[in-house]
Amino acid sequence: MGIYPVPVSKLIEEFERLPGIGSKTAQRLAFHVLSMSRERVYALSDAIRNAKDKVTYCSDCYNITDSELCPICSSPKRDRSVICVVGEPRDVAALERTKEYKGLYHVLHGLISPMEGIGPEDIRLKELVTRVGKEDVKEIIVATNPTIEGEATAMYISKLLKPAGIKVTRIAHGIPVGGDLEYADEVTLARAIYGRREL
Amino acid sequence: MGIYPVPVSKLIEEFERLPGIGSKTAQRLAFHVLSMSRERVYALSDAIRNAKDKVTYCSDCYNITDSELCPICSSPKRDRSVICVVGEPRDVAALERTKEYKGLYHVLHGLISPMEGIGPEDIRLKELVTRVGKEDVKEIIVATNPTIEGEATAMYISKLLKPAGIKVTRIAHGIPVGGDLEYADEVTLARAIYGRREL
Repeated sequence: MGIYPVPVSKLIEEFERLPGIGSKTAQRLAFHVLSMSRERVYALSDAIRNAKDKVTYCSDCYNITDSELCPICSSPKRDRSVICVVGEPRDVAALERTKEYKGLYHVLHGLISPMEGIGPEDIRLKELVTRVGKEDVKEIIVATNPTIEGEATAMYISKLLKPAGIKVTRIAHGIPVGGDLEYADEVTLARAIYGRREL
Repeated sequence: MGIYPVPVSKLIEEFERLPGIGSKTAQRLAFHVLSMSRERVYALSDAIRNAKDKVTYCSDCYNITDSELCPICSSPKRDRSVICVVGEPRDVAALERTKEYKGLYHVLHGLISPMEGIGPEDIRLKELVTRVGKEDVKEIIVATNPTIEGEATAMYISKLLKPAGIKVTRIAHGIPVGGDLEYADEVTLARAIYGRREL
């Protein structure tokens, strides 16, 4: 018999599966849940389920959305001739916070990583090529993380789209090499877009 | 319009309400939920709801349990003449891990704190007195935290039960095992000297 009732140890187990949550934190969170009002517990439980159930990917850019097209792709105010390519939806959020960029996005959902066996066909690159072929795109800004995988992906995109006469640029290394877009501050990110260079 | 779809920002909001989870961690967790399989998301969501729905308090000691009596109160192996009084259910778990204590517990669900307006009637003290009157209790060990609130609660319990001829003891305060004298605070050191025992 464990120290805790089964529903509590199950909850601790589930919390422990989350990234960055160790066993002590998981216990602390589980006890906090027990002390919360039923209304607040249900709100948390439902929010988790709803996020998974209601959020899908934009059929154009593959950013997260709760409708067919994401608000950016369906906005008439965005410049449709520029597409900024990123690895993950959270990178879109980071770039949007700068309020500098007015073009569209393309979320790859991963980066090329031979080490992890992730090839070009495993991320949404085919969809990028289709998009570029269909729309009147003048520039592709590759804003993948400045890591080995991000650079490899940038090179691949450049080789893929340059022959088609598309200008492919890379965000400037204003971001520390080895850093993560998600954690960059707005000013650094804005500078990185401004200082982008052709590949 | 926010940067994230509504179900995602709602989830971030709910995560931010949890103790020790800031805005960056809440975002990271929300994106992690989106990347989890539906099965795992439902397991997490259900575990949260179940913990609240199925866990109640033991009708004797007020520890958390998923049955009428907790496993400790219903065990025939425990010494029913000693009751260890703690502030919270997680304190029971901490003491059980030592595998040293064989008596029963009593969970107060709070400590007396005039600063926060928590008086003796706001915690499960009345229930402790009733228990002591009903059962053949020989000793009450007060194992509340060594804080102002914990000490105040210990003093109150002592004054309440000593006149009834019950032995009331307090857990020892001193240098933690493996700790360093040099880094111990004065109060702890003073307590350690005061509570010295013959070797």
